Amino acid sequence: MVNILLAEGLKAIQSDIDAAFDALLPVPQDASGRLVEAMRYATIGGGKRLRPLLVAAVAQMHGVDRAAAVRAGVAIESVHVYSLIHDDLPCMDDDALRHGKPTLHIAFDEATAVLAGDALQCFAFEVLGDPATSGDPFVRIELVTTLAVASGHHGMAGGQMMDIAAETASFDLQTVTRLQQLKTGALLGAAVEMGAILARVPVEGRRHLRAYARDIGLAFQIVDDLLDHEGDEAAAGKALRKDAEQGKETFVSLLGPERAREQARMLIDQAVSHLASHGAEADLLRALARFIVERDR
Amino acid sequence: MVNILLAEGLKAIQSDIDAAFDALLPVPQDASGRLVEAMRYATIGGGKRLRPLLVAAVAQMHGVDRAAAVRAGVAIESVHVYSLIHDDLPCMDDDALRHGKPTLHIAFDEATAVLAGDALQCFAFEVLGDPATSGDPFVRIELVTTLAVASGHHGMAGGQMMDIAAETASFDLQTVTRLQQLKTGALLGAAVEMGAILARVPVEGRRHLRAYARDIGLAFQIVDDLLDHEGDEAAAGKALRKDAEQGKETFVSLLGPERAREQARMLIDQAVSHLASHGAEADLLRALARFIVERDR
Repeated sequence: MVNILLAEGLKAIQSDIDAAFDALLPVPQDASGRLVEAMRYATIGGGKRLRPLLVAAVAQMHGVDRAAAVRAGVAIESVHVYSLIHDDLPCMDDDALRHGKPTLHIAFDEATAVLAGDALQCFAFEVLGDPATSGDPFVRIELVTTLAVASGHHGMAGGQMMDIAAETASFDLQTVTRLQQLKTGALLGAAVEMGAILARVPVEGRRHLRAYARDIGLAFQIVDDLLDHEGDEAAAGKALRKDAEQGKETFVSLLGPERAREQARMLIDQAVSHLASHGAEADLLRALARFIVERDR
Repeated sequence: MVNILLAEGLKAIQSDIDAAFDALLPVPQDASGRLVEAMRYATIGGGKRLRPLLVAAVAQMHGVDRAAAVRAGVAIESVHVYSLIHDDLPCMDDDALRHGKPTLHIAFDEATAVLAGDALQCFAFEVLGDPATSGDPFVRIELVTTLAVASGHHGMAGGQMMDIAAETASFDLQTVTRLQQLKTGALLGAAVEMGAILARVPVEGRRHLRAYARDIGLAFQIVDDLLDHEGDEAAAGKALRKDAEQGKETFVSLLGPERAREQARMLIDQAVSHLASHGAEADLLRALARFIVERDR
């Protein structure tokens, strides 16, 4: 199912990201050590690392140094992981399972989970700000700004607020699309953008990459809704069918599973078409797009 | 009690910071609007704005443009406020009152409070990354790195983790000092450092300012403990004597109120002595140091 290029790409980035978190987060020998242990528990050895793979794939297309791409990948993954930690809290989605293991507030406690999420967020900006990520301060500050804007109230956090409102409001397709573009799409868009920033691709040269990211982001969410609707909890490693229980509209509830699947495929075709100006160097991005509709978890 | 220079400085920064948050956080007309309303509730019209005043005082000493100092002040205050929002949550300190009004999770709800804290943290880095803060990307990225390191697991968040551990451990004076240097001192140190970064003061020229910040930070916390021990809840606008209830060691429990007060005064004298190389342009910093031991809330 997964093509070889993608399988290798995923394996390599998973290994590199784990190693980088391990190296960048040594546990201090005092009472703050528990915080770093919690950050390590949440970041090392879990997740598909799609966002770091996007950063690395775009960076590699343009010949960027791998170590720089991995550092930017660590930063965006830190933001993604912190959002999952906080999303899993009892006052949010109240989930007990993530990547097949107990969520952070279950394995540690709620206060530590709040703090570890908070600390992972600024850790992301600390990593980006370090000259090891890029010797050029302009590149570093562009990475910071791109990640900050995508994470905040006009991006991921804004989408999560809309997601909470979806429990009591009855959103139409346009509003659900906007919600998902913020909640998931903004960070996926930031991932390709960060790869391009590392490569010093000027803003106008990034447009087709952003369009690619927008399409795969939406397709990703539609497939998430399909997997939530049809999937197997053991395979997913997390609780499913929570949206339906909470009365939230999703792409599946609004379109039905067949049209939703069709829509996801169409978006992936469109995403791939945005890469037409690239040759074989964009094959990993193409394979990644296909994987998004074909994945089973 | 408060000298005129300081009274004017506080009034001006409070007004400038409120105006800046108001301008930088317009409420969007969709379901994410509630998030921005929560961010505004927590940031506009509350708090002494000590951290922004420190940024502005150091910046002003070196002739930095006021608007730049206010933007850096907004960033550091965003981090401070997000930490208060999360600290007030039921799973942390469970406080219902802050600056004399209901805490965010009471006025809104817990999920919104978690999200608003998260969004305020990346808002801080978004503000610093914007060229409006400084035209020089090196200045902007130094501001980002300084704030990120001071906020994270080797700074504020690490101190908060130690603070949670203090409920069950019995810390000695050295450990309580280290805890407070992380929890409060790191961000106060970042404030003076950010003022100096805006002024392009080289690292070696910032040492005496950091020493000043370290001393006032510790004195600030000792006085906080004294006010917590002796203060009036109505005047403080928040619940008091929680440390004693939770069995946490504080400077007051370890030193007794008299020695604690003496220690705070000594630290302030020492803080002022670090400014000996400056003339009248450092009078605001001197007045601020005196205010820290003389304040009644």
